[in-house]
Amino acid sequence: MIERLAVIGVGLIGGSLARALRAADAVGTIVGCGRARANLERARELGVIDELTHDPAVAVRDADLIFLAVPLGAMRGIFQAIRDQMHPDAVLTDGGSVKCSVIEDAKAAFGRIPQRLVPGHPIAGTEHSGVEASRADLYEDRRVILTPLAETDATALTGVKVMWETCGAEVTCMSVDHHDEVLAATSHLPHMLAYGLVDALARMRENDEIFRYAAGGFRDFTRIASSSPVMWRDICVANREALSTMLARFGVEMTELADSIRRGDADHLLEIFERAKAARDRYVDRFELLR
Amino acid sequence: MIERLAVIGVGLIGGSLARALRAADAVGTIVGCGRARANLERARELGVIDELTHDPAVAVRDADLIFLAVPLGAMRGIFQAIRDQMHPDAVLTDGGSVKCSVIEDAKAAFGRIPQRLVPGHPIAGTEHSGVEASRADLYEDRRVILTPLAETDATALTGVKVMWETCGAEVTCMSVDHHDEVLAATSHLPHMLAYGLVDALARMRENDEIFRYAAGGFRDFTRIASSSPVMWRDICVANREALSTMLARFGVEMTELADSIRRGDADHLLEIFERAKAARDRYVDRFELLR
Repeated sequence: MIERLAVIGVGLIGGSLARALRAADAVGTIVGCGRARANLERARELGVIDELTHDPAVAVRDADLIFLAVPLGAMRGIFQAIRDQMHPDAVLTDGGSVKCSVIEDAKAAFGRIPQRLVPGHPIAGTEHSGVEASRADLYEDRRVILTPLAETDATALTGVKVMWETCGAEVTCMSVDHHDEVLAATSHLPHMLAYGLVDALARMRENDEIFRYAAGGFRDFTRIASSSPVMWRDICVANREALSTMLARFGVEMTELADSIRRGDADHLLEIFERAKAARDRYVDRFELLR
Repeated sequence: MIERLAVIGVGLIGGSLARALRAADAVGTIVGCGRARANLERARELGVIDELTHDPAVAVRDADLIFLAVPLGAMRGIFQAIRDQMHPDAVLTDGGSVKCSVIEDAKAAFGRIPQRLVPGHPIAGTEHSGVEASRADLYEDRRVILTPLAETDATALTGVKVMWETCGAEVTCMSVDHHDEVLAATSHLPHMLAYGLVDALARMRENDEIFRYAAGGFRDFTRIASSSPVMWRDICVANREALSTMLARFGVEMTELADSIRRGDADHLLEIFERAKAARDRYVDRFELLR
């Protein structure tokens, strides 16, 4: 049972955690903290939070669990603001999509890696944002990755693991670098392709005419290009090393594919498409149940 | 009213046309032609077709409307097979995703562009294929592009237009080149990115581990990589010019994006993501109703 939960950033991710813990009767009071008054008030109206404040230092006072769900670019400032206000036993965790930068930010703010910091990342979300989009079941059957460090307190780690399991998620631990590489491949790179494709088309003359003939496949394919630009700017900057490596790898693949198209090399194209379809179908079969 | 419809290739596209016309009571007898006996028999069981044959020359005999829904690589052979068997008044149309190659194939087989050929392309489909995936409502509120030529008979054009409207589609006419460019941008390029991404990941060591952590966005983004490899091989070869141009354009966009990520140029990244999100949201708002 979490007596007092502080959620810094009450959007899709923070709001859904609050709703899920509330639905599971696993939390006492929830204090929400954010910059936009209207969103916080809406969160209180919706019953997602009980109390609201704009000041992270106030939010964390007496909280036994603190969850940071702000864009990566805001993490360091929050760590600095809460550093001297946290209860010494409070567990601190986050939902950031890149783990190396969060840990660096914590180290910079605290002067060392806090023992009760458990870096985490729920692999969930939609292209919508804000508390209105939050749902109690967002994490059900989803994966949550935790990246504990040598310094991480075992009890804090267990607490965060149990918290996510209470929300219906399956928790896995891995190293920070491995997390950032895997996410660069499966999430950050696809977002870059969707943004890049839509932007390339938007920059063409007669782009309205082009979008007019886009079909359902295009809508699905580009859905992630409707995600928050600020969040994705921060992710790119925070994970630029792993993402640059993946972009280069993808560039090699596409150069090969483009060469085959130019040459009309039907056999090689079929080989690529068959390998990709087999991998995609296998992945859907295997992992569909665990969304 | 179509007295006798010949559908060459009774898969998702051909089967759905047959179902839609039948549902609208706009067709008499439907003869289905294909290579796979099991699929044709299943089509007859499902009531999608009335008669079946493996021989296109037999299928088109006495048909007043002939619809080709075979992979682009099979078009020329079909044109050659039916050339001398078609009724002189029969209207010939197709559902190929690239129009320049279909017209070239027809010209090669007939020695000239047949006056009663109306090249067409329904902008519809899913990643599934075969008659089992066909649906009477596949074309409802979808766009169909026709690319009539100077030689095209006006009555034949009207007949095909009315046929698609009967299926609930909105019909637009445009030039062959324009069609092939627009489709390269909105359909062929996205398919290449999805195939390229999945293949790049499949070729990485520990690719199972990577796919394991893919979330919903990845599933949507890569759905089109489960499409038919043979169909897409043929599309790439048939539309290699327009597609190569689009791939090069996308390459420039991604080089710019990758540079910004490497440099950590937050402002430029935000600019790209905001422009893309605005374009995508605008497109969804405007064209969502007409799927």
